[in-house]
Amino acid sequence: MKSSYAFPVFLALAFGSTSAQVHRVSSPGNIIEVTFSLEKGVPYYSVQRMGREVIQPSRLGYLLRGQAPLDRNFSITSATTDHFDETWTQPWGEKKHIRNNYNEFRAELEDDHSRKVKIVFRAFDDGIGFRYEIPSQKGLDRFEIMDELTEFKLPDDHMAWWIAAYQWNRYEYLYKHTHVSRFDTVHTPLTMETKDGLCLSIHEAALVDYPSMTLLRTDGTTLKADLVPWSDGVRVKAVAPMKSPWRTIQLADTPGGLITSYLILNLNEPNKLGDVSWVKPGKYVGIWWEMHVGKSAWGEGPIHGATTANAKRYIDFAAKYGFSGVLVEGWNVGWNGDWTAGGKEFDFTKSYPDYDIEEVSSYALSKGVRLIGHNETGGGVLHYERQLSDAFAYYQRLGIRAVKTGYVQWGTGIKRIDENRKEQGEWHHGQFMVRHHQKVVGEGARHHIMIDIHEPIKDTGLRRTYPNLMTREGARGEEYDAWSADGGNPPEHTTILPFTRLLAGPMDFTPGIFDLLLKDYKPNNRVNTTIAKQLAHYVIIYSPLQMAADFPENYEARPDAFQFIVDVPCDWADTKVLNASIGNFVTIARKDRNSEDWYLGSITDENGRVLEVPLSFLGPGAKYKATIYGDGTAADWVDNPYAIEIIQQDVDNATTLTLRLAPGGGTAARFTPITRH
Amino acid sequence: MKSSYAFPVFLALAFGSTSAQVHRVSSPGNIIEVTFSLEKGVPYYSVQRMGREVIQPSRLGYLLRGQAPLDRNFSITSATTDHFDETWTQPWGEKKHIRNNYNEFRAELEDDHSRKVKIVFRAFDDGIGFRYEIPSQKGLDRFEIMDELTEFKLPDDHMAWWIAAYQWNRYEYLYKHTHVSRFDTVHTPLTMETKDGLCLSIHEAALVDYPSMTLLRTDGTTLKADLVPWSDGVRVKAVAPMKSPWRTIQLADTPGGLITSYLILNLNEPNKLGDVSWVKPGKYVGIWWEMHVGKSAWGEGPIHGATTANAKRYIDFAAKYGFSGVLVEGWNVGWNGDWTAGGKEFDFTKSYPDYDIEEVSSYALSKGVRLIGHNETGGGVLHYERQLSDAFAYYQRLGIRAVKTGYVQWGTGIKRIDENRKEQGEWHHGQFMVRHHQKVVGEGARHHIMIDIHEPIKDTGLRRTYPNLMTREGARGEEYDAWSADGGNPPEHTTILPFTRLLAGPMDFTPGIFDLLLKDYKPNNRVNTTIAKQLAHYVIIYSPLQMAADFPENYEARPDAFQFIVDVPCDWADTKVLNASIGNFVTIARKDRNSEDWYLGSITDENGRVLEVPLSFLGPGAKYKATIYGDGTAADWVDNPYAIEIIQQDVDNATTLTLRLAPGGGTAARFTPITRH
Repeated sequence: MKSSYAFPVFLALAFGSTSAQVHRVSSPGNIIEVTFSLEKGVPYYSVQRMGREVIQPSRLGYLLRGQAPLDRNFSITSATTDHFDETWTQPWGEKKHIRNNYNEFRAELEDDHSRKVKIVFRAFDDGIGFRYEIPSQKGLDRFEIMDELTEFKLPDDHMAWWIAAYQWNRYEYLYKHTHVSRFDTVHTPLTMETKDGLCLSIHEAALVDYPSMTLLRTDGTTLKADLVPWSDGVRVKAVAPMKSPWRTIQLADTPGGLITSYLILNLNEPNKLGDVSWVKPGKYVGIWWEMHVGKSAWGEGPIHGATTANAKRYIDFAAKYGFSGVLVEGWNVGWNGDWTAGGKEFDFTKSYPDYDIEEVSSYALSKGVRLIGHNETGGGVLHYERQLSDAFAYYQRLGIRAVKTGYVQWGTGIKRIDENRKEQGEWHHGQFMVRHHQKVVGEGARHHIMIDIHEPIKDTGLRRTYPNLMTREGARGEEYDAWSADGGNPPEHTTILPFTRLLAGPMDFTPGIFDLLLKDYKPNNRVNTTIAKQLAHYVIIYSPLQMAADFPENYEARPDAFQFIVDVPCDWADTKVLNASIGNFVTIARKDRNSEDWYLGSITDENGRVLEVPLSFLGPGAKYKATIYGDGTAADWVDNPYAIEIIQQDVDNATTLTLRLAPGGGTAARFTPITRH
Repeated sequence: MKSSYAFPVFLALAFGSTSAQVHRVSSPGNIIEVTFSLEKGVPYYSVQRMGREVIQPSRLGYLLRGQAPLDRNFSITSATTDHFDETWTQPWGEKKHIRNNYNEFRAELEDDHSRKVKIVFRAFDDGIGFRYEIPSQKGLDRFEIMDELTEFKLPDDHMAWWIAAYQWNRYEYLYKHTHVSRFDTVHTPLTMETKDGLCLSIHEAALVDYPSMTLLRTDGTTLKADLVPWSDGVRVKAVAPMKSPWRTIQLADTPGGLITSYLILNLNEPNKLGDVSWVKPGKYVGIWWEMHVGKSAWGEGPIHGATTANAKRYIDFAAKYGFSGVLVEGWNVGWNGDWTAGGKEFDFTKSYPDYDIEEVSSYALSKGVRLIGHNETGGGVLHYERQLSDAFAYYQRLGIRAVKTGYVQWGTGIKRIDENRKEQGEWHHGQFMVRHHQKVVGEGARHHIMIDIHEPIKDTGLRRTYPNLMTREGARGEEYDAWSADGGNPPEHTTILPFTRLLAGPMDFTPGIFDLLLKDYKPNNRVNTTIAKQLAHYVIIYSPLQMAADFPENYEARPDAFQFIVDVPCDWADTKVLNASIGNFVTIARKDRNSEDWYLGSITDENGRVLEVPLSFLGPGAKYKATIYGDGTAADWVDNPYAIEIIQQDVDNATTLTLRLAPGGGTAARFTPITRH
């Protein structure tokens, strides 16, 4: 709860009337300090961590359309602080109980045109967030933001892991690892490591009705918010009172500290949906990978994947092994022809003739399994929105509880109709699409449908507020191994994701390919891991809807390894990072939310590693049976990816495991209590 | 024991009779593979770790005086492999039981002059060692090595931590952190980190009768052994059979893995001294720091430090707080005048008149304390050697059980008499001085005296063979804070030492300064740490003779903090590295050898850190009382170094501590079992 606890968080220094006004707020544990100041009326903030400068004085403000710049000639009309400390519970997630503990500083500013802006800073021990609030006021009730001037002035040329934001319609790139000075504009999360070992990540939280923030390097190591524009060049079409998303900077002394920072979630509003007992994480299989490898097709024809018979085959498999969902892509009409030209042929309630969705869905229900709906829009967003309510009502009637949406479309191919009834092309990451995704989530909530967005807007922690917004894509997933011309995801890819994309939130990576060499379908493509690393991904890559992406027959051909996928949950009570080196290796342990079991995943890049892992996360005083799925001694992702060694041993929290990860390999493990004394 | 266990370690490929002969040996866990080959008669070796090239094919061989080069036209006359696996016990050390497990490959070579050389490789899971053996043979019974051609061809321009070896008389430099391509010649251990996170360190083991190996960068990232010469330019004056020291390469996926690699010790011969129950690790205080800060002087005069009364004061203090030794420097005649001009005035059995060594030593014994002898030679090595036997016999009679030697001298100021009775100047790190130190150790063993060498030859693990060779200096120690013109040791210094100098062996760093600001004596110097970091150094910097270097009155002024120094042992059953980032931070836990207590030290550089430390090293099922000596909330090495917070809490092996290290700070902790269930 909020409290007015007299905490020493607030220090205001006024050096005469015309000079700087400086305010400081420290985090509850005195780890981080944010300074806010007006220098001759211009607002600046800076960030220190334990005396070390992390963000140098950086500008704040806006440029508005048809108005004077909203970035100068300010005075502070009110400066208040607050302390907040509460532990809240995620209905599902990577950790059940999350502490939200911060000190807040709120500055109310007024400029020489009597325009009011509030800037709110929250200082946590693991980072900061700040946002702008524009209250309702005369002359500023409806306004257009042409630029957000927020800077992030870095004191040094850190090493960074980044994907370019030179286009605003996709995140599906391989991460680059260079000095900050070597990029131009990048997406967030932007993760960096200083030369003395501090890890930091810049992102945003609670992106609800605003465009995505990308980061433009303006000069040296100064970054500036660069908002994705509307088709008319406006960045934000705003109505007061307006609250911007939170700009976030997470800070940790180890890479793992970024993963277990819950600052993004803490800066989102609590659950607005009330009872969400209908939201149920789960694993799924489905008709999807077969289209990617070319075994079948989305559209009607001789190799159409979404047939009644094929769907029942997956349902049988799901029921047999305890998967709760079956995704069927290519089930509805509209795929034949160039569906990426606007997707106007898609009918979201009309199945292809060889797919009897009524029969399939009731067959699924009879087996204790539910279909997962699929709505590829081809970017035809207005077309989709018109059908949304009917479609979701229909799915609800069929017992469908989750829908995967898709927005395959390039450039500004997403069309809206403007005030003059003209069609305008919008970017995936602008305010228009942010609003669209919110509409889908809202419609989903009304029909008790969980949402899984592909080609999404990036995650900013909204799952806290809307717990039916489960997961999304937003990075190169498993399908790149099936067809990408650049050789697929290199082994290091998933050793970077946990520290970049996954800091934003869950990802529907769709792991678990067992037929790594794809000989029968894609002899020139392959999956660039060992099979044990495929298993480890289930722990490393968190998603509350987690796919087992390969074919049933490929799993049944390797029942020993498959057992891990059968066992592993996707809803966790706790998460611990046991070791980590960004782009090199990472080991994560997670506790099942519905049992006393723990699971471990450890992965490496193209280099073999030997890692000592103390099992100190296990409960004290209990013996566990460990089932360890490790790379075989001679395993190697290049030449010998299938070599796996599955062993069982008794362990407790004093045991240290030596994990031997093959080049491109990994280890997965399950720990089940056997005694308690 | 040795075994002829049929292990798949040996693979010989002969591609025709005139072409390459290739042999491979793998480490027992198949982590590391060494390849040895003759390419057109020229020997090469290379090293792979889990398929990754660590050392590219690198030359081997010697240049001999007055003979053809011993590096070509070889053929292999014998190639054998062996497996060895044994766990041995250190009489004292950082770990009690050490496993020595390797596969060996031994190549016997003969060149076109019928000269025989053996090259022996040992492949461990944590690195490799190799050495040359020159058997007794006609024409090669006495010979002079003019150059050792051993190369270490690195595949990439790694980041390295190094000290320059442009002179061969000292190691007392601050470590530099650059790419390999930025140095010329460096001392070992040379520690590097590859860009994908592999840690490696090149050093040598068992340097008994051979000069020190430094590493010369010949080209790009190729390093070559560069042996420290005699005054006549010869590198090694050898008698067959000759065994070179082992050239070692330690490899680990984490920096901490280097610290817990015991490869250097494993490559030394077992204890040759037999019963060493007279060797007793212990903590000591003494008359030393007062000379460094200028409170007293080594030489005779009004501020002479080594007086009977002052020594008794330290003895009383030692007895009161349980220190086993009292070092008294400046006790013997010879300090007045320029003792660095050869040290010929030093008499190692004659006290200054104001110091009654007989009285002092018997006073000490009556209090259960022993004097630690001090033999500064000023580089007058022959002068010292002439007195050595008498001096050590005298010390033994006085109950002295340890002697600190010193070799303060610059350039080639160490003099020997050559065959022509001419005086020649030798380097500290040449074969002449290596032999000298062995003489002292041998004489020490005869008189049950432990040796602590200052201005030493570097450690190469000889303590295993000669367990009275306890510790040494060989890096910038605490005294630099008292007087160095460059501002003393920066905060990062001791976050680098564990991964460089300390990989070689124990260091007599002489930690524990409580009067950090030296206001009364050296107002322009200071110690660049917080006080809690001074405590943490007792765990971080391992030495079996460990000093509490400050004055008794400075300790008694801070009894709360001093309690840690009173409690902490210096002989350990086990060592665990809990986290580490070279030059940034390191946390080590060590278990007392004589109790069930554990101790923890954690230090940082100039940056504050927050580190999560699971206490999984604690025994299972036991509750411990933790006494934690942490930096105060507002502590900072610059402005507020004395702020310390000492707390007690109950913990067990499921507890995770959050350590908050101030800038330049640290945490020390003791864990004592309170229950067992």
